[in-house]
Amino acid sequence: MNQYIETYKDFRKKLKAYEYVMWLIGWDQETEAPLQSVEYRSKQFQVLAEEAYKYESDPKFVEAIEKLYENLDQLDPDLKVEIKKANKELRIIKKVPKDEYIAYQVLVQSGSHVWVQAKEKDDFEMFAPTLEKIVEFNRKLVKYLETPEMKGYDILLDMYEEGMGIKEYDAFFNTLKDELVPFVLEVTAIKQKFNRRLTKAVYPTDKQREFSHYLMKVFNYDLERGLLKESAHPFTSGVSSTDTRITTHYHEDNFISSIFSTIHEMGHGIYELQNDPKYDDTALHGGTSMGIHESQSRMYENMIGRSLAFWKVHYPKLVELFPKQLKDISVDEFYRFINTAKRSLIRIEADELTYALHVMVRYELEKSLINGRLKVKDLPKKWKTLMGQYVGKRPTTDKEGVLQDIHWSGGMFGYFPTYALGSAYAAQIYHAMNKDFNIEEAILNNDIAKINAWAKEHIHKFAQTKTPKEIMQIATHEDFNPQYYVDYLKNKFKN
Amino acid sequence: MNQYIETYKDFRKKLKAYEYVMWLIGWDQETEAPLQSVEYRSKQFQVLAEEAYKYESDPKFVEAIEKLYENLDQLDPDLKVEIKKANKELRIIKKVPKDEYIAYQVLVQSGSHVWVQAKEKDDFEMFAPTLEKIVEFNRKLVKYLETPEMKGYDILLDMYEEGMGIKEYDAFFNTLKDELVPFVLEVTAIKQKFNRRLTKAVYPTDKQREFSHYLMKVFNYDLERGLLKESAHPFTSGVSSTDTRITTHYHEDNFISSIFSTIHEMGHGIYELQNDPKYDDTALHGGTSMGIHESQSRMYENMIGRSLAFWKVHYPKLVELFPKQLKDISVDEFYRFINTAKRSLIRIEADELTYALHVMVRYELEKSLINGRLKVKDLPKKWKTLMGQYVGKRPTTDKEGVLQDIHWSGGMFGYFPTYALGSAYAAQIYHAMNKDFNIEEAILNNDIAKINAWAKEHIHKFAQTKTPKEIMQIATHEDFNPQYYVDYLKNKFKN
Repeated sequence: MNQYIETYKDFRKKLKAYEYVMWLIGWDQETEAPLQSVEYRSKQFQVLAEEAYKYESDPKFVEAIEKLYENLDQLDPDLKVEIKKANKELRIIKKVPKDEYIAYQVLVQSGSHVWVQAKEKDDFEMFAPTLEKIVEFNRKLVKYLETPEMKGYDILLDMYEEGMGIKEYDAFFNTLKDELVPFVLEVTAIKQKFNRRLTKAVYPTDKQREFSHYLMKVFNYDLERGLLKESAHPFTSGVSSTDTRITTHYHEDNFISSIFSTIHEMGHGIYELQNDPKYDDTALHGGTSMGIHESQSRMYENMIGRSLAFWKVHYPKLVELFPKQLKDISVDEFYRFINTAKRSLIRIEADELTYALHVMVRYELEKSLINGRLKVKDLPKKWKTLMGQYVGKRPTTDKEGVLQDIHWSGGMFGYFPTYALGSAYAAQIYHAMNKDFNIEEAILNNDIAKINAWAKEHIHKFAQTKTPKEIMQIATHEDFNPQYYVDYLKNKFKN
Repeated sequence: MNQYIETYKDFRKKLKAYEYVMWLIGWDQETEAPLQSVEYRSKQFQVLAEEAYKYESDPKFVEAIEKLYENLDQLDPDLKVEIKKANKELRIIKKVPKDEYIAYQVLVQSGSHVWVQAKEKDDFEMFAPTLEKIVEFNRKLVKYLETPEMKGYDILLDMYEEGMGIKEYDAFFNTLKDELVPFVLEVTAIKQKFNRRLTKAVYPTDKQREFSHYLMKVFNYDLERGLLKESAHPFTSGVSSTDTRITTHYHEDNFISSIFSTIHEMGHGIYELQNDPKYDDTALHGGTSMGIHESQSRMYENMIGRSLAFWKVHYPKLVELFPKQLKDISVDEFYRFINTAKRSLIRIEADELTYALHVMVRYELEKSLINGRLKVKDLPKKWKTLMGQYVGKRPTTDKEGVLQDIHWSGGMFGYFPTYALGSAYAAQIYHAMNKDFNIEEAILNNDIAKINAWAKEHIHKFAQTKTPKEIMQIATHEDFNPQYYVDYLKNKFKN
């Protein structure tokens, strides 16, 4: 066994270095690389990707993983999890014809370019042929990967969230359909009014930036192990427990956007920074699933960051930075403003209450696309219908409808549902944490460290060694239950 | 021949990708990487360096270079230059025992750490044993690499500036000794006086930053192919003609530092940005030598950036940004202020007039260290003596003396002289350019583009395809002649 362990670790060490490279190139590209450097960078990236692939698919590495997988019980617990994961990832190399797989990689790389143009021109026809090919491949992919235990869309769902399949998501979304949809339609029927300065005043970037850095301190984001920068779309980019970076964006006509983007990304970032450092050199560093990751960003953003307690403490700082803009606007009005629910068309701009319903639309569509009951050409119409049913608002253009998200153009099917799941996990986790200590009190004492510590102990430190199901058991002592989410939303948004 | 060309190009493509990676990691590290990420990054860096070394020393690659080198006349002119260069670089792999070379790499990596501490504590004894080993290796290195045509310190000098050896540098520095040293001692005997606000006022960073960005526009620095950032020590970091980045630093108590750092680095940057793009994918992108590189940064910084003509145009903008600080200070006084010559101890803070004399001290010491006439333990004393003779000021501490520069701790012997050489090249190049058009007039017309275009045509576009000697011939139609430099300085600094 030992020589296989050694071989595995040798290859892992090399692969970690390539992972680091890809990570850094991506970070640079999204935050500051000069516009015209793209072509030169792509060339180098391709060489490096090929180098990494050579190691990933090296017969010696594959053999080591297979042998170790056959002898899982002889491995220490962490390595056991790692080998299970590695073995699962081998499926692609072993079962999907290499040529088809590479052709698909090329397809999805150009896919997002086609999508950008189609979105700009509001022209679904332009994107449809590409999307058809991508859907086609994914339908083939699930055939290649199917086992007696798992078939179809379940395979894609499981890639992003282990243990969550159609059965589980149907149960989740049916709860939302039954309990949340009617509630949302009721709540959003009334239009709220706010001081015009909240929506119309100019909030200078440098003051917003100052507030974001203030928030970094409030949340104890360790600047010796991370940093805050700017990018078109905010994101978190972590490579180790000593290097996890986040970005935000500043819009002078929408100052709350940077505030909640910064807090959201800090949620992701704190998760990875609080991974046990011993996983840095393994394949287990990072978040265990998209859903758990999103649960942390959503919990920090919505449950802490959009709470009245939080703003009782930090609103004065905001007023100090924007004295004219926020003059005579009470913390209560500000709180109501940042928690306005309304029927809207764009998922990434949706409020906390309606967000999951936007996701539900995509889940239903993906399910039907992969099982073949829905054709790509019928997507735009179906999109509009479902939006009307779930969110109460139908888009008139595809740009604001089916073309709004990048995911499908990159071949990401099965990803969307984790966004809604994350919010629901968050409600359950928050509820459990609140049994251990009074969270509102901690927030009022400006003691976010207490929340970080709890999250580290119950979620973050485990990195990828526990499945989402296991994390929910450790953190909440029960299986996932969407009722917490529905209750939380109803309580927060009841008129 | 063709299969060797193909092999060579295959390897080159891979090596370019690793070069890109090293470049990006270095850039990140120096500009923004979080403090605690150093260890994790070093681990990945080491793996990648090993990967690159594997290709560099691959027998197939070595064979291809050797075969092509034997048939140079069959190659197209650019490839010919490239193969000559590659063959020269093979010397190390072929002649230096691998173990010794790797041990030396480890030594110099830790060398700079030892140096940092020794400098902090002003303790030369602490650094001496390491420096002795480094000198020892370099003396062995030149033995390994010696040929009937080239021996000793010449080999190290030639590594940084092809064609420049002891004979050439002696001639250069003797001219400075004879003509410049007495002039400098005379000029610096008189202390100049300036409005106290020039030295004592606070110049806020954000205004300095605004001015640096203004300068980027003035010099037509293409922000689609580069960017300006901040770092402890300003530097230029280029990887292709589409990606060449520079940094500066802001000191609120020394506002001219950021101005001339920015212009200096732009000189380096414009050189690489104006390389013919066809060299991007070859080993010929970049500056042809340290001296020619420095000639561009010095020409932009000192001859353009510190000219009266330049400030006649741009001083109003500076006053606009610092109205209180620069109130009632005329452009003439400002011009005199930024061109003050004085006897000082620290090379990197030295003015244009005295700078080369600081370098001369180091050249003489290196020469004696490598030929064995000077022992490491006698360095501090000898340093003080030479500083007294050439610059007219003796340091009282080693921190301000022999310990001030990082170079020797990293094994860089032969590098220093190129700094002085660059300034001297610059004077000769400027003189030649001024025959083609009136540079002062171009500066007064705010037409730096004209200067850029000339430099591109006569220097920059050639990248590394011409030797420094060839560049001087192309640009000035004569061999290097230090008299231009002496004349330029005497004319500018005469009282």
